[in-house]
Amino acid sequence: MDIVIPLYDDYEPLDVVGPYEVLAYMPGASVRFVGAEKGPVKDALGALPTYVPATYSEVERCDVLLIPGGRSVEAMVADADFLAWVRRVHARTRFTTSVCTGSLVLGAAGLLKGLTATTHWSGAEALASYGAVYTPQRTVRQGKVITSAGVSSGIDMALTLAASLTDEVTAQAIQLWIEYDPQPPFDSGSLAKASDAVRKRVFELGKEPPHNG
Amino acid sequence: MDIVIPLYDDYEPLDVVGPYEVLAYMPGASVRFVGAEKGPVKDALGALPTYVPATYSEVERCDVLLIPGGRSVEAMVADADFLAWVRRVHARTRFTTSVCTGSLVLGAAGLLKGLTATTHWSGAEALASYGAVYTPQRTVRQGKVITSAGVSSGIDMALTLAASLTDEVTAQAIQLWIEYDPQPPFDSGSLAKASDAVRKRVFELGKEPPHNG
Repeated sequence: MDIVIPLYDDYEPLDVVGPYEVLAYMPGASVRFVGAEKGPVKDALGALPTYVPATYSEVERCDVLLIPGGRSVEAMVADADFLAWVRRVHARTRFTTSVCTGSLVLGAAGLLKGLTATTHWSGAEALASYGAVYTPQRTVRQGKVITSAGVSSGIDMALTLAASLTDEVTAQAIQLWIEYDPQPPFDSGSLAKASDAVRKRVFELGKEPPHNG
Repeated sequence: MDIVIPLYDDYEPLDVVGPYEVLAYMPGASVRFVGAEKGPVKDALGALPTYVPATYSEVERCDVLLIPGGRSVEAMVADADFLAWVRRVHARTRFTTSVCTGSLVLGAAGLLKGLTATTHWSGAEALASYGAVYTPQRTVRQGKVITSAGVSSGIDMALTLAASLTDEVTAQAIQLWIEYDPQPPFDSGSLAKASDAVRKRVFELGKEPPHNG
């Protein structure tokens, strides 16, 4: 089971590592990170330099393609070479998936036309501009295309995917291994649940990327 | 707000990136990753090479120390230099925290004697051997020491911590930004909830580290 995750500068780290932590534990799975070039990529939060060991042009096919989101997704949706590669690989995947604004890449590649799909709540309009029908669900599956909502939703998506690729007992064992028994101290993880004060504050937080490292 | 996270070979990536994704969004926060040496470290799942930009010996103090777990925690609890550094930094932190088997490092450093604490369910006995009272809670705070359970629990812990370091509205805004409205497809994220079949399978999964990359 060959899982390929493209990384690019300013990728959102939990978009990537949430599903990675789940999918890599599937027996027989192999996760590969790829970039436009081999070498260092910078995460959106700025402190965790990562070294991408392979280029996406080396990948002709894979079982699962997973596109993460991030602050530079606008550059990725304008990168014709990358989008052509996404389309080409998608043609032979078992599942083509996205986390957060990664769905905008799938949209820009023309893979979501007429499909119901989801994304980070801040990306709803952009998603619709690609002909997708946005729904604020955590995970949306349409045939072999699975999109998920913002950042942390990739963990839920990956558990569902792991059950499809292996079996429910194995997916549940991975859930137990990563002790995914979430108990958030607050209940403001979606726009529908957050208070007006929280929605105001999140726009302030979102304006400026964090400065770390 | 200076947050320091030591990385070492075979660290569990979600232990690290879950809290990083939360804490780095706090206004004024700066997250630093440190290692025994500058340079590449390997994650426990094998596919995401990371480059650590600073050594822990460069850090004399920080506001928050966060110790992640991983497959090599046994080496870390035997590393006298590292444990001495943990003790020295802990003396002046605002919060000393751990995710997963990172609590065994705090235990080995002598910081959990007589305290209630938690860890990954597989580490309960080892934790008790350091004089801590293990409890299978998601997050345990004792004074300025906060331990959390396995892997994904660091997200919950970090949201609680963010509320202490900033305010509840800010912590809730970070929760909304990372859309942390968890909807796991299964309910087997703790030993108490998992079926016998799942508990049997998890020991098979846990025996062998994943082969990726």
